[in-house]
Amino acid sequence: MEVTFLGTGAGMPSKLRNVSSIALDLRAINRSIWLFDCGEGTQHQILKTTIKPGRIEKIFITHLHGDHIYGLLGLLSSRSFQDGHSPVEIYGPAGLQTFIETSFKISHTHLQYPLDFFTVNDNDVYIFDGLKVRVKKLTHGIDSFGYQVIENDQLGELQVDKLKSRGISPGPMYQTIKSQHVTTLENGETVKREDVIGPDKPGRIVTILGDTKQPTQFVDFVKNSDLLIAEATFASDLPSLAEQFFHSTITETTQLARLANVKQLCLTHISQRYTAKDQLDLEQEAKAQFTNTQIAIDLLTLNVVKP
Amino acid sequence: MEVTFLGTGAGMPSKLRNVSSIALDLRAINRSIWLFDCGEGTQHQILKTTIKPGRIEKIFITHLHGDHIYGLLGLLSSRSFQDGHSPVEIYGPAGLQTFIETSFKISHTHLQYPLDFFTVNDNDVYIFDGLKVRVKKLTHGIDSFGYQVIENDQLGELQVDKLKSRGISPGPMYQTIKSQHVTTLENGETVKREDVIGPDKPGRIVTILGDTKQPTQFVDFVKNSDLLIAEATFASDLPSLAEQFFHSTITETTQLARLANVKQLCLTHISQRYTAKDQLDLEQEAKAQFTNTQIAIDLLTLNVVKP
Ligand SMILES: [Zn+2]
Ligand SMILES: [Zn+2]
Repeated sequence: MEVTFLGTGAGMPSKLRNVSSIALDLRAINRSIWLFDCGEGTQHQILKTTIKPGRIEKIFITHLHGDHIYGLLGLLSSRSFQDGHSPVEIYGPAGLQTFIETSFKISHTHLQYPLDFFTVNDNDVYIFDGLKVRVKKLTHGIDSFGYQVIENDQLGELQVDKLKSRGISPGPMYQTIKSQHVTTLENGETVKREDVIGPDKPGRIVTILGDTKQPTQFVDFVKNSDLLIAEATFASDLPSLAEQFFHSTITETTQLARLANVKQLCLTHISQRYTAKDQLDLEQEAKAQFTNTQIAIDLLTLNVVKP
Repeated sequence: MEVTFLGTGAGMPSKLRNVSSIALDLRAINRSIWLFDCGEGTQHQILKTTIKPGRIEKIFITHLHGDHIYGLLGLLSSRSFQDGHSPVEIYGPAGLQTFIETSFKISHTHLQYPLDFFTVNDNDVYIFDGLKVRVKKLTHGIDSFGYQVIENDQLGELQVDKLKSRGISPGPMYQTIKSQHVTTLENGETVKREDVIGPDKPGRIVTILGDTKQPTQFVDFVKNSDLLIAEATFASDLPSLAEQFFHSTITETTQLARLANVKQLCLTHISQRYTAKDQLDLEQEAKAQFTNTQIAIDLLTLNVVKP
């Protein structure tokens, strides 16, 4: 489970940061890749990664501002030009279907695969292969949503002492016992997995919030995330700009992370007023407020691990 | 009068070539810049040039395929975020207004400047400050157009021998005489410009064709262009692919240039099947058929001069 930031800038692209998109690599869990937001140039950024557009199976859109959706048209078209035949599901606020279908009609674009649209609402929960996704409505002037990806709980560890006390020595048989409910040994005895395995390990939780102001409203939703990705459009000294434009400051988002007992925080959707020279200052400012924090940059990849 | 290729690839972006867009720099003539087509990522390419989006006053769209229009939404939005307050005129096939207005409505985009739409038709002529534009319908399966930019004729050269024979010595007075119809000299005599100036010099002609098959149909339209920019999606060995997909080969387009007495040819809209290693081969192939030819690459700038 890896996150790659395809675009980390707010509003419009700069040489330093493209507009918003995040890839969640689930190839180890269910062979797919999901996107969160898809600003213009997302397909160009993907060319710089190992992601094959044909592997992208779901796209979650946080809100309909142009810097979060204008890349959908080209990405979906190019996916069709290339190897893409499997369906794509698009989740987001109402309006996406009209945007895409109107644009494709006018541009005479005919995809080689089906598109399915899902209009999300506050507190929705979607169950998928190996994961579920929770939806939370944020505060951004227009409908904006956060998505929380929760990996299914994982099997616990084999209790080696119990196995050994039954005379089963370490070896390939351990993997077999772990992989099925009941295993018959060579001597005819049966081993029930539930008797020799520890408690389930909770799955990883990744929360990706769309644009919002006053993020500390969402402590309950974010609680115990292993990775929180959230906007911090402005540095801590510009709370009134953040309030005015329905955005967050570094202070506000690190406070959310602290209150919600987040393990790792990555801030994105950085105002284009900040240049490459400001990156270090922003990161120092954020880390002083919440230690395990990064300011995302384009093409940064984070591996999501349970602490 | 300069042309900058912002994207030179067909269908979808690659690392080598972005999708179609061409900037025509008319700052020396009327302080404006015009775009021809605007594929996704055009605004990103503009970041690598000296072009200010606020200077872009007219956008001509050859046809509505996605790789020629999907960059309009972001470019127009960012122009508004930045300094753009002057109106933008958009010329192209019917459908552009619906595409842009639907997308802007859904994304809650409100420009700070007016957009004016003009639906073009075969043989239209538009008269602008210092230039006119002729329109030609091409053959591409869907409506596709070529645009010919014709600079107004320029004043001829002052006839120095005539001026001298009237006792007027070279100096700043020559510029004054050229700049107005009648000049009164210090001695009270008057000089009519028409008596001391040579014949008008014809303005420059730049023809930009959209996607088309069988380009030699358009010899009359292209005739005597100082610069012809036209597609050659495929090399000369793939005429049946070109025919099938309503595109041109290098052979077909160089033949158009020859028949139309073009001074300079630049081929663009190159299939993404051709890699950086193929660039030299393609250019050699083209030059063997029409000497003054280039295969465009992204960010190539050509200065348009009268031979
Ligand atoms: Zn945004
Ligand atoms: Zn094309």
